[in-house]
Amino acid sequence: MKRVTLGIIGLGVVGQGVAKLIKSRHSFVLQKFGVDLQLKTICDLRVDPSFLKSLGKVIYTKNFNDILKDPEIDVVVELIGGHHPAFEIITGALENGKHVVTANKAVISNYGQELFSLAHKMERSIYFETAVLAGVPIIKTLTEGIAGNQYNGLYGIVNGTCNYILSEMETNKISFEEAVKLAQQKGYAESDPTLDINGMDSAHKLAILISLAMGKFLKVKDIHTEGITHISKEDLYYAEEMGLTIKLLAIAKKIDGKIEARVHPTLISRKHPLASVKGVYNAVLLEADALGDVLLVGQGAGQMAAASGVFSDLINLGVDNAEGDRTWIGDNPNEIEKLGLRSMDDIDTEFYVRFMVLDKPGVLSKITGILGEHAISIASVTQKVVNKNSAVPLVMLTHAAKESAVRKALKKISQMKEIKAKPVAIRMQEL
Amino acid sequence: MKRVTLGIIGLGVVGQGVAKLIKSRHSFVLQKFGVDLQLKTICDLRVDPSFLKSLGKVIYTKNFNDILKDPEIDVVVELIGGHHPAFEIITGALENGKHVVTANKAVISNYGQELFSLAHKMERSIYFETAVLAGVPIIKTLTEGIAGNQYNGLYGIVNGTCNYILSEMETNKISFEEAVKLAQQKGYAESDPTLDINGMDSAHKLAILISLAMGKFLKVKDIHTEGITHISKEDLYYAEEMGLTIKLLAIAKKIDGKIEARVHPTLISRKHPLASVKGVYNAVLLEADALGDVLLVGQGAGQMAAASGVFSDLINLGVDNAEGDRTWIGDNPNEIEKLGLRSMDDIDTEFYVRFMVLDKPGVLSKITGILGEHAISIASVTQKVVNKNSAVPLVMLTHAAKESAVRKALKKISQMKEIKAKPVAIRMQEL
Repeated sequence: MKRVTLGIIGLGVVGQGVAKLIKSRHSFVLQKFGVDLQLKTICDLRVDPSFLKSLGKVIYTKNFNDILKDPEIDVVVELIGGHHPAFEIITGALENGKHVVTANKAVISNYGQELFSLAHKMERSIYFETAVLAGVPIIKTLTEGIAGNQYNGLYGIVNGTCNYILSEMETNKISFEEAVKLAQQKGYAESDPTLDINGMDSAHKLAILISLAMGKFLKVKDIHTEGITHISKEDLYYAEEMGLTIKLLAIAKKIDGKIEARVHPTLISRKHPLASVKGVYNAVLLEADALGDVLLVGQGAGQMAAASGVFSDLINLGVDNAEGDRTWIGDNPNEIEKLGLRSMDDIDTEFYVRFMVLDKPGVLSKITGILGEHAISIASVTQKVVNKNSAVPLVMLTHAAKESAVRKALKKISQMKEIKAKPVAIRMQEL
Repeated sequence: MKRVTLGIIGLGVVGQGVAKLIKSRHSFVLQKFGVDLQLKTICDLRVDPSFLKSLGKVIYTKNFNDILKDPEIDVVVELIGGHHPAFEIITGALENGKHVVTANKAVISNYGQELFSLAHKMERSIYFETAVLAGVPIIKTLTEGIAGNQYNGLYGIVNGTCNYILSEMETNKISFEEAVKLAQQKGYAESDPTLDINGMDSAHKLAILISLAMGKFLKVKDIHTEGITHISKEDLYYAEEMGLTIKLLAIAKKIDGKIEARVHPTLISRKHPLASVKGVYNAVLLEADALGDVLLVGQGAGQMAAASGVFSDLINLGVDNAEGDRTWIGDNPNEIEKLGLRSMDDIDTEFYVRFMVLDKPGVLSKITGILGEHAISIASVTQKVVNKNSAVPLVMLTHAAKESAVRKALKKISQMKEIKAKPVAIRMQEL
């Protein structure tokens, strides 16, 4: 029997879920894994007294140092989120010889390398399964499940809010604004949903996935990030007509010793399993070089989905820890390959482009002329509605073209007097 | 640095893949995981001399005891498959104090409990990631990735041959026989494909999944198993019209303290991600009680997909082993819950039923009358082609009905003189 004494810092929705699991599944975990999880102390600025009471003999404090300095506590569970004081709590815990379990994507994506080095030095572990895809074991899969493979590509639907909004827009033909409102009503979006819909949340998660899959620690600011605010229900409808769907994808590729890292709305085939990942579900597709493509799908948010990830970490830590200490993501936080970062200008993709044009003779020829000048060749053109004297959508699919060329061509086309709105350009991805 | 000395028994397609990975990725694994994998001895009755030479300084033997008795060897990799002498090799290895890595679904599903008990007694481990879904880490996910959850349901497409055949029949509107031939040409089916298409391969894998997910060791013979030989392209076509598709599913459910375990063709919604798992891809959908639904998809066969699973086991064993010995699937091979087995007669499902009937007045009323007598209510009826004097297909969907009642009703309906062929009944599953 391995006794593990815990302190939880941050008793929000997820923290309460974790505390509940620790209490209600104590004997199950003891019997199945031989791990005796004991919650000793809880720290938060406020706490619901009746919830605290329901946990039985647990100490409550407002000062996280009571946990960090307690020699009896083996594992600190950090669930307050954000950069600070989460960073100080994690370093403090490691320096005091404690293991850390955290669900904090911000602190891991920004300070991962530093934290893992400290953990390595202190011979303690940081477990963070919940930082990406909540309890769906993508971290465990990358670090242990598919050991000995290298990854050439990685494609993730890692933000449930965006996926819910896009799914609703597509299925119910509603506008972006209506879908956001619906997501807020259902509790799938914050009252200020900016960090979700602008893609930043996905970029944080992509940075973590890249560090594990490709051994490169990127800064979030190095990741080209676009949100979903410019996607219209019309684009989703036209995509559907072409057998495609639009997902906010977090993409990483390893090409010629460089990494391509980007987050943006992406057109994919409706036939690919990733296309049927709907609503708040998340997914990651891995291109493993020996094993082949592997897809993992599950709920990337929600109280118990997140609490499950933290709980799983605690059990695994209990099992591993009893047999010696190790830093979880390999004992070596260093980069094995020295991979550069590919400039966004250099990437090649096919594009969906929608122009709002006045339907006059010669317009199409002018547009295709400009695209041709920039070495962009066209795979298909469809004019969606014929309506003289008002702007109509003109939808094009291009063959693979250089990002910088497409950007320049669209800028030039935008200046045409027949173009009545900013062109919408969405990258495509074959999977 | 942790040195792990290996002996491989069985140098077939997968064994050669493993040997290649051990050689070509030695320094990568050493650097990333600190594990020094050394292949010392290979055992097989025949071996390609040029392949052997390509491995460098490796001992070749025809006698597996040379590996079992070698005190230098830490891990025995069993890749001959089947029950015997695989069972004797694994027990011999454990008794000689060696860890075991195996890809053998037959021996694990039939002798798992016995082997894990022996491993526990000898303080050695058995790793068998490859036994289900090849290198796709479903075993790791069940044992560690989603620790602390219990599973109420599990649905697997675990046989690539069947999934390829059904996908081809559906996509290209070809017959079962044509699809089998195609699968054989592509190397996706054996020249004798019986064990795949009769569902037995899936039943073996389901037994393993149930032991891990629900803690119950079932015998394969206790699993109700049907193959796909009775599925016609017409059924796939009618299913498609109704927004459904047919998959050979391995199903386990926990209901009222009993386990339902069955393998059979199953109608599922085309909207569910499982429906888009096509061709030789495999998948397992888990209903985890805290985390929610999790789906894992990947290639369940093929030289490198299988070799990747064995290789991953070797690395994980190297990492774990350096810190003490443990039996991988929990230290406790005993059943925690005492779950019974639910009789097939008692299960409730919706059914798709196709009758070939003579289109005469009163036939439908007669059929629905018999169904009604057996308390089977009908959700929809469609007569597919109107053609007097020759049998036409009559397709019905039922509401949830008891298996035993449906069996009795169909038997009675079969005896009607207007029924011109054995009715086809396919269970449905909502996911």
